[in-house]
Amino acid sequence: MSFKITATIASFGGQLLKLTHNASTTGCEMALNLYLPPQAKSSKVPVLFYLSGLTCTGDNCSEKGFFQHPASQKGIAVVYPDTSPRGLKIAGEDDAYDFGTGAGFYIDATKEPYSKGYKMESYITSELPKALFSEFSQLDSTRVSITGHSMGGHGALTLFLKNPGMYKSVSAFAPIANPIKCPWGEKAFRGYLGDDKEEWKQHDATVLISKGKVEGGFNALIDQGTGDNFYKQLQLLPENFAEAAKTSGNDKDLVIRYQEDYDHSYFFMASFATDHVNHAAKYLFA
Amino acid sequence: MSFKITATIASFGGQLLKLTHNASTTGCEMALNLYLPPQAKSSKVPVLFYLSGLTCTGDNCSEKGFFQHPASQKGIAVVYPDTSPRGLKIAGEDDAYDFGTGAGFYIDATKEPYSKGYKMESYITSELPKALFSEFSQLDSTRVSITGHSMGGHGALTLFLKNPGMYKSVSAFAPIANPIKCPWGEKAFRGYLGDDKEEWKQHDATVLISKGKVEGGFNALIDQGTGDNFYKQLQLLPENFAEAAKTSGNDKDLVIRYQEDYDHSYFFMASFATDHVNHAAKYLFA
Repeated sequence: MSFKITATIASFGGQLLKLTHNASTTGCEMALNLYLPPQAKSSKVPVLFYLSGLTCTGDNCSEKGFFQHPASQKGIAVVYPDTSPRGLKIAGEDDAYDFGTGAGFYIDATKEPYSKGYKMESYITSELPKALFSEFSQLDSTRVSITGHSMGGHGALTLFLKNPGMYKSVSAFAPIANPIKCPWGEKAFRGYLGDDKEEWKQHDATVLISKGKVEGGFNALIDQGTGDNFYKQLQLLPENFAEAAKTSGNDKDLVIRYQEDYDHSYFFMASFATDHVNHAAKYLFA
Repeated sequence: MSFKITATIASFGGQLLKLTHNASTTGCEMALNLYLPPQAKSSKVPVLFYLSGLTCTGDNCSEKGFFQHPASQKGIAVVYPDTSPRGLKIAGEDDAYDFGTGAGFYIDATKEPYSKGYKMESYITSELPKALFSEFSQLDSTRVSITGHSMGGHGALTLFLKNPGMYKSVSAFAPIANPIKCPWGEKAFRGYLGDDKEEWKQHDATVLISKGKVEGGFNALIDQGTGDNFYKQLQLLPENFAEAAKTSGNDKDLVIRYQEDYDHSYFFMASFATDHVNHAAKYLFA
């Protein structure tokens, strides 16, 4: 088995597996959590990828996000990957919370030295799912959805838009929706991609959604708390995304909800996890 | 206001308040979490005290226990107190995870030097509820239930049994059910109460339940994971409690569930939080 199971934890009638594996895209051992709902004991189940935000590992949401509760009811496996390679010993990678370790932004770095292993886009869309589907026969490779929080919301939106047909649905919590226009995104894209802003645009959800009608439709659910300090500091910019979706005719089935008083924390995610799992279930079981 | 609100966090349609107050029983500032469900905006709501286990503060369960979800549906406030006084500067109080700071055991210490401020029984049953009911008019002082985990499960069972009529119902997750017969309990009781084992018995749930029929009945729900290492190490001893309840005729409405494979973690609690809130709701809304 290419995965090592470091713990098996009973959760909501199913099992939360703590996994590690050696990933070639990132050039290091990657840790993740895989939740197998009770239904996986007797049948194949669809899969929801949950991409975490800055500083997080796959542990945080598995402990605080309460996706296991609705996933156990619907019969959906949840994959919680890590947010970057770890331990590559690139000079400076541990210096900031918003760049390097814990901040891979779900893109493939092209600029040295990060081009060495910061290949989170390839890891999430190719190497990890291939490894999971080959090892866990309970997972249905034909029914996959994606969601995420903050940096992971950016990841979910962009990976959905870049890979038509790969995911049945997408949703996001407080996504960094227009990274080329906010400090977090500018710093990350300059560091991982270099100074060419045309290159940046290929990884910006707002630019991507503006490029015409999305193949297969754009049935996205986005939740944004109005008490979120990062929203107030213009790091997230969901309005830009909404406007671009409207201009490109992708707004018909796009639901952006502004949730009164909610912040950027896992309390916010936990409160609406059921809605996002149900959103995914609608397409995974269509 | 005797409480300072250090944060107000939106959670499942209600508010999680992070509070501190100066407590005279413990002689220090005490922190706690209070969850007000959405129903508290327009009416009085009953209250569930959740007592945490060794090493925890009131934060852990508010983040990982998933009680807010069912509490928001039923309209029940949840109080998450701390597990001991903090910062009393008693020599040795920070030396072990299972004694002193984070390990107050919900009893009033009688032995010096802990008799100074380790008065968690008085704090939980008297000072804290009085302060809460006087400051938060949304809380219905006539409808209160109690639950808890591990050391806090011991707390919930013993405080329910010691104070007839104070709580409408009791439940527990993996309680230390017979502390005078396990290493954790022996260490704590010796340290807080001294060497007189007759004194210890006044604070042991299994001894307390053996003393005859509980006034008003004993409608308790207890969950115990069979994969719980502390259960295997005989720290919890729920069988002793079950046997004592049977002998004293208190087993008719006592439900002890052995949950296959579940461990001692918050994953276990989260999985059954809804059952425990529903158990409390049955009596709080009777």
